[in-house]
Amino acid sequence: MSRIHSNWWSNALGCLLLMAWVPLGAQVASAEAVPQLSEEDFGKAEFIYFDRCSGCHGALRKGATGPNISDEKMLKKTLIELEEVIFDGTEAGMPGWGRTGEMTKAETALMAKFVQHPAPIPPEMGLKAMKESHKIIVPVDARPAKPQHDRDIQNYFGFILRDAGKGAIIDGDSKELIEVLDTGFAVHIFRASATGRYFYTIGRDGVVNLIDLYSDKPKVVASVRTCLDARSIDVSKYKGPKGDFEDSLAVVGCYWPPQMVVLDGQTLEPKKVISTRSSTYDTNEYHPEPRVATIVASHADSEWVVAIKETGMVWLVDYSDLDNLKMTQIAAERFLHDGGWDATKRYLLLAANMRDQMVVIDTKEKKFVTKFETGIKPHPGRGANWIDPEYGPVSATTHLGEGKITVFGSDPAGHPEHAWKVVREQETMGPGLFLKTHPESDNIWVDSTLAKDEGDNQKICVYKKAAFDDGPKCWKAADHGKIVHFEYNKAGNEVWTSVWDRKGEIIIYDDKTLKEIKRIKGDWLVTPTGKWNVYNTVHDIY
Amino acid sequence: MSRIHSNWWSNALGCLLLMAWVPLGAQVASAEAVPQLSEEDFGKAEFIYFDRCSGCHGALRKGATGPNISDEKMLKKTLIELEEVIFDGTEAGMPGWGRTGEMTKAETALMAKFVQHPAPIPPEMGLKAMKESHKIIVPVDARPAKPQHDRDIQNYFGFILRDAGKGAIIDGDSKELIEVLDTGFAVHIFRASATGRYFYTIGRDGVVNLIDLYSDKPKVVASVRTCLDARSIDVSKYKGPKGDFEDSLAVVGCYWPPQMVVLDGQTLEPKKVISTRSSTYDTNEYHPEPRVATIVASHADSEWVVAIKETGMVWLVDYSDLDNLKMTQIAAERFLHDGGWDATKRYLLLAANMRDQMVVIDTKEKKFVTKFETGIKPHPGRGANWIDPEYGPVSATTHLGEGKITVFGSDPAGHPEHAWKVVREQETMGPGLFLKTHPESDNIWVDSTLAKDEGDNQKICVYKKAAFDDGPKCWKAADHGKIVHFEYNKAGNEVWTSVWDRKGEIIIYDDKTLKEIKRIKGDWLVTPTGKWNVYNTVHDIY
Repeated sequence: MSRIHSNWWSNALGCLLLMAWVPLGAQVASAEAVPQLSEEDFGKAEFIYFDRCSGCHGALRKGATGPNISDEKMLKKTLIELEEVIFDGTEAGMPGWGRTGEMTKAETALMAKFVQHPAPIPPEMGLKAMKESHKIIVPVDARPAKPQHDRDIQNYFGFILRDAGKGAIIDGDSKELIEVLDTGFAVHIFRASATGRYFYTIGRDGVVNLIDLYSDKPKVVASVRTCLDARSIDVSKYKGPKGDFEDSLAVVGCYWPPQMVVLDGQTLEPKKVISTRSSTYDTNEYHPEPRVATIVASHADSEWVVAIKETGMVWLVDYSDLDNLKMTQIAAERFLHDGGWDATKRYLLLAANMRDQMVVIDTKEKKFVTKFETGIKPHPGRGANWIDPEYGPVSATTHLGEGKITVFGSDPAGHPEHAWKVVREQETMGPGLFLKTHPESDNIWVDSTLAKDEGDNQKICVYKKAAFDDGPKCWKAADHGKIVHFEYNKAGNEVWTSVWDRKGEIIIYDDKTLKEIKRIKGDWLVTPTGKWNVYNTVHDIY
Repeated sequence: MSRIHSNWWSNALGCLLLMAWVPLGAQVASAEAVPQLSEEDFGKAEFIYFDRCSGCHGALRKGATGPNISDEKMLKKTLIELEEVIFDGTEAGMPGWGRTGEMTKAETALMAKFVQHPAPIPPEMGLKAMKESHKIIVPVDARPAKPQHDRDIQNYFGFILRDAGKGAIIDGDSKELIEVLDTGFAVHIFRASATGRYFYTIGRDGVVNLIDLYSDKPKVVASVRTCLDARSIDVSKYKGPKGDFEDSLAVVGCYWPPQMVVLDGQTLEPKKVISTRSSTYDTNEYHPEPRVATIVASHADSEWVVAIKETGMVWLVDYSDLDNLKMTQIAAERFLHDGGWDATKRYLLLAANMRDQMVVIDTKEKKFVTKFETGIKPHPGRGANWIDPEYGPVSATTHLGEGKITVFGSDPAGHPEHAWKVVREQETMGPGLFLKTHPESDNIWVDSTLAKDEGDNQKICVYKKAAFDDGPKCWKAADHGKIVHFEYNKAGNEVWTSVWDRKGEIIIYDDKTLKEIKRIKGDWLVTPTGKWNVYNTVHDIY
């Protein structure tokens, strides 16, 4: 039985302060009130929690984008109250898991009981366990020296088929499906290696797959599990005086354990674990679960830009010497989420989505520049960069919390008067996840995946760079599912998007005419979500 | 009641490995067997554990220089067995706390029961709690602009009076006691600010005191508590293109919570908490309690060299921009303890005392150089640097585990063939804590504080730099207590040492003749241990 430690820490030494206790014994006090759960049900609830809840509430339930839902707090509510919230959701942004059909009535009842139990602490995962999970399926020297086909891998697309636990590779030129690959649970993103030869996938379960695009049929050539819960992966892109790191390393950003893991880029052999457990940027209080949000590879230096969500820190991690690891830890804002480069790839623009702000990091000077409000929960994805006729180079973000695109100046050298200031705003159909453009395009494509009004989340809106304030052209692109995420082809003249449901579709548009070129359907198209064009991903074109 | 989490993490996802569980429920399983302890006795045991045991076994009892003594392991032993070990000690190095009179029979019995209970996890300590403990007793602008006396503060000595919870300031010129100050529980070290104006003390309880030496009677002008358990403090010494940091910052190295804390050097206002929770340098497994051993300030750059004990990492922390904090994390060896500069102040020489090795860090190139064996548990303190007639510039260490001084080359530029190689060894009276020399001296002074043979720990031995292999001149310097630690005066022609017991003494020798100049006694001299001369501490002269 655990025990509240006595108070000598604060007074036996005649010291200076009254300490706030860690209430170790608090779990014991209300043991009688905790609803019974069988080991089997508890395990089931743990999985549902991981799948649906931990993203917002954290593995330890201490709260993040969602509130703290410790057993202490949850025991103050009735099971009926809890079940209602889980089933119906809240105005504050909690999804109604029962209402949307993602949980059954029995499951929402189970989860109500589960959250009245102390949060089980997931195990650690270190190098030994990772190595045990590591598989080289095709050794490096058994891989082809050049492509075994005459397709252009630079125009390949990697597609997530989320709920199928698969990923699809589609040829952007012929628009043919080349292969569907088992990638494990809920792949979150694809990243292409610096030469474009490999795709890396990271699953919600922390499993990394390395896909060789030189094979006639793209093939998983290595895999490894690096965490129990993950969201991000990126690669080393630097080639210069410090060495050639193209296709040399990959890095995984874990949610649990809170850590980064550096992998060999060719074999996925785990090489280095970097813990992110640390203190919040502002209040300097220890956080037990600072999760790694996005990771972006620098082109100019041997560095990854790593957004640490809960602490609000941005870490620039220099991968050129892992044994003498250089790092810059930049105080930014909470809670950091995703982001991408400005057009010059000097500044990283990151969303601090619980502070309704965008944060600007100067990766050349390796310091914080500024932060500014844009709207409720900015969510730029990688963002979008273009030249505004009046304000010069600008960047933009959508928002999770409101239907709004915010455009801000991002050219401090050429247009200092507009830099990091909001210059344009446009209301959209509803809260969205992504927007996208391309230097060759006149357009900005926007989804409204989270829009509440019937059908609005099935619409696509396109703004003109030359006349942004004139508003978008919008149309309904599907009569089922939700439209989510855009990606250009290599040439920048087509836009690909997903209809996200179990009978998913891929729609390809001509960027100039906004006409539909092709609509891909098929049994294999289960819950298509994100997609990445090799060339645009390698070169950070958005 | 805590619960073993179910195993979905490893198999519900069809993932790749069998995970080793964190046995959260282990505490519950054997609850019947745990001996009863009242809340009062438990608190008393916690304090004794902190005072006597945690240094070696760690706050979480997971082991460090001493073995893991978790409740699971301790429940496999009988209370009688445990009591015997605690009372009598072991050959492996565990002190016999009863035998030496430091614990009563009742206390050793209490501790035997205590270690069969789960280790209580001490609370965190963040900026808010630190600020609540922070006191400015004399504001900066109320302090004198120049010394209020005509003594030479550069030749002041700060003395620890360990068990009195006090510190003494002694004038090195007149050898008069100037002031005894309340410094709180078990001060571990004094450090002088870069100009020498201030002394900083750090207590085992994490309390920092700032002592102004300009006052006629040295005065505590500020205090703060930054951790619950601490060992190290240092100051910012850099003045150059990046700014003038003399007397500007201090940094505390905590044992618990495992963190560094940066303070304003003039007010002790806490500014930044840097967690050290991270992974081991070699196996890359997460360690929950990586304690900060020694911290050494660079003279050439705005950096602290921070030895992280359990992970075996050396962190170079650049304090010139706390909001955009640059750091180099260098893989070294376990368990890092203390150390100091070579004569050029480019290389830091650190003991990895559970690997019987010295580690060499190049602070100019910011990388690991090498590590090499010297003897059982090297313990150099700051070390000692001199010119050997045959091998050129050398450095040396004593050992905790055997009576041996090891001398090694430390001039890779001028004498690369001897650099970081053992060139001389000499057996001493017994295991010791410290050795010391000074550039103006022909001698090296050595204690044998841990010697077991009656009286050997009351002896002092002095070696000649010019004829080290001829062996030392030794003499018995006290008939009570133990001789511990040496410090030169500013001129480098006197050596000060302590007779460590409740009727403590300070002995001052002429370094040339080895004759006793003065022996200071007094009721105030309770357990004098370490001592620091302002000038030598500021300039790292050893």
